[in-house]
Amino acid sequence: MDHNVFAWPVRIYYEDTDAGGVVYHANYLRYMERARNEWLRSMGQPIGVIKQRDGCVFVVASLDLHYKATAKLDDELSVTAQVTNIKRVSMTLKQTVLRNDEELVVGNLNLVTVNADTFKPVAVPSALTAHPLIQNAIN
Amino acid sequence: MDHNVFAWPVRIYYEDTDAGGVVYHANYLRYMERARNEWLRSMGQPIGVIKQRDGCVFVVASLDLHYKATAKLDDELSVTAQVTNIKRVSMTLKQTVLRNDEELVVGNLNLVTVNADTFKPVAVPSALTAHPLIQNAIN
Amino acid sequence: MDHNVFAWPVRIYYEDTDAGGVVYHANYLRYMERARNEWLRSMGQPIGVIKQRDGCVFVVASLDLHYKATAKLDDELSVTAQVTNIKRVSMTLKQTVLRNDEELVVGNLNLVTVNADTFKPVAVPSALTAHPLIQNAIN
Amino acid sequence: MDHNVFAWPVRIYYEDTDAGGVVYHANYLRYMERARNEWLRSMGQPIGVIKQRDGCVFVVASLDLHYKATAKLDDELSVTAQVTNIKRVSMTLKQTVLRNDEELVVGNLNLVTVNADTFKPVAVPSALTAHPLIQNAIN
Repeated sequence: MDHNVFAWPVRIYYEDTDAGGVVYHANYLRYMERARNEWLRSMGQPIGVIKQRDGCVFVVASLDLHYKATAKLDDELSVTAQVTNIKRVSMTLKQTVLRNDEELVVGNLNLVTVNADTFKPVAVPSALTAHPLIQNAIN
Repeated sequence: MDHNVFAWPVRIYYEDTDAGGVVYHANYLRYMERARNEWLRSMGQPIGVIKQRDGCVFVVASLDLHYKATAKLDDELSVTAQVTNIKRVSMTLKQTVLRNDEELVVGNLNLVTVNADTFKPVAVPSALTAHPLIQNAIN
Repeated sequence: MDHNVFAWPVRIYYEDTDAGGVVYHANYLRYMERARNEWLRSMGQPIGVIKQRDGCVFVVASLDLHYKATAKLDDELSVTAQVTNIKRVSMTLKQTVLRNDEELVVGNLNLVTVNADTFKPVAVPSALTAHPLIQNAIN
Repeated sequence: MDHNVFAWPVRIYYEDTDAGGVVYHANYLRYMERARNEWLRSMGQPIGVIKQRDGCVFVVASLDLHYKATAKLDDELSVTAQVTNIKRVSMTLKQTVLRNDEELVVGNLNLVTVNADTFKPVAVPSALTAHPLIQNAIN
């Protein structure tokens, strides 16, 4: 794991698991959402500020997930968020769910910036595109 | 079970269960919400119609739940909805989750009618208070 | 929509939605799980029978989702399940979430058959591979 | 808020909210579960240790919730856990969800200790009943 990549801790409770004894597969998307929000907050750009200042929100347009190992009750995981590509109205993020250094789930998510009222695509806010963490990530 | 009481079927999938091998305790509230919505629809009063016509929604103000037995993966349950008391701005419902005739969870929920914009309490819509199913239930 | 494809209805309640006013993106995976389970049941092969008879369960190994339009509160959706490829220990399913004839979400999921105790890959049960619905779907 | 009471932070994401723009009512039970687990961990008694050493788990037998105000997207909440009564096989906890000093939801939960295999009630582990935090809470 690249220690320059943003990572957010997630603890696994009963709410996260299923009768197979492991984390329910859809729930990793919840953890990735948490990590994306905290990654934005870490850049001084929480979603509430973006919505109020720029009038836009991010919606998931597409994603892929690869499940490599399972997480269990009481595990402490780490979820990364890293921009791998950025276009005028969209960003692609790679997000990884780790337990220590073991990759459990790897995802790629394409997020489109849309107007919060009309849901029409709009440009990614310049406060993000100009941010060093994003500039560095894509170069 | 009183066969005059409205009941709605719920099938249990992995999404509903936890690592204890049973349905996660909070999820019964989701099934009770489903049954309340379908009970309103069965009276010709789906929540979308009520919101558009009367400008109000229902919010849960308080509830109690009693867990008597557990539901498991692939169980087919039945969830009831029945008004036990009605006041100007609120209704109390008894809701039971059953597997065949066995009561698994029994709940009492106090729902307040609020303006959809301001969230201030408003009168329960007359289309509901005048409905025979509710009139019968409370007499 | 091909009317030979298995489809399962899903109604949208508050539990399914988020503060954006639409269905939370991860929840479509829950609906796809429901449709897969009911598709197996429709072939006389509910997951409980498969687990008891063959000692195996299905786990999601990878998936991709494409979000084309949003579902809202009280929508009635339809979720399909269709095998597009089958190998010794895995199946690929295409699953589509529709509102009437409009495709909202399209997913491809790779499911691996694993021993229920060891989680080691095992052959897809012959009761499935031999079933006409699967034979037809892949030819 | 009594600053001797255990409290655990919870941040609100889209996953937590519903189309009413607020936190979905059932989700507060998830936050209370998180706080109970972390409260046990804070006493050196995480649920995994209890299950392995004492062979038991806690199940919710009954609860009541009182909703006083709503939480919204991006709120940072605090969830308390405090024993109010303890018997041979069960504990009653008061749990409160706060935003700063405002009480949003207050709950009382009765938890029964059960054998992890048979689900039969067993005595509350002595490591808990003897712990100063619990001794203090109930005297």
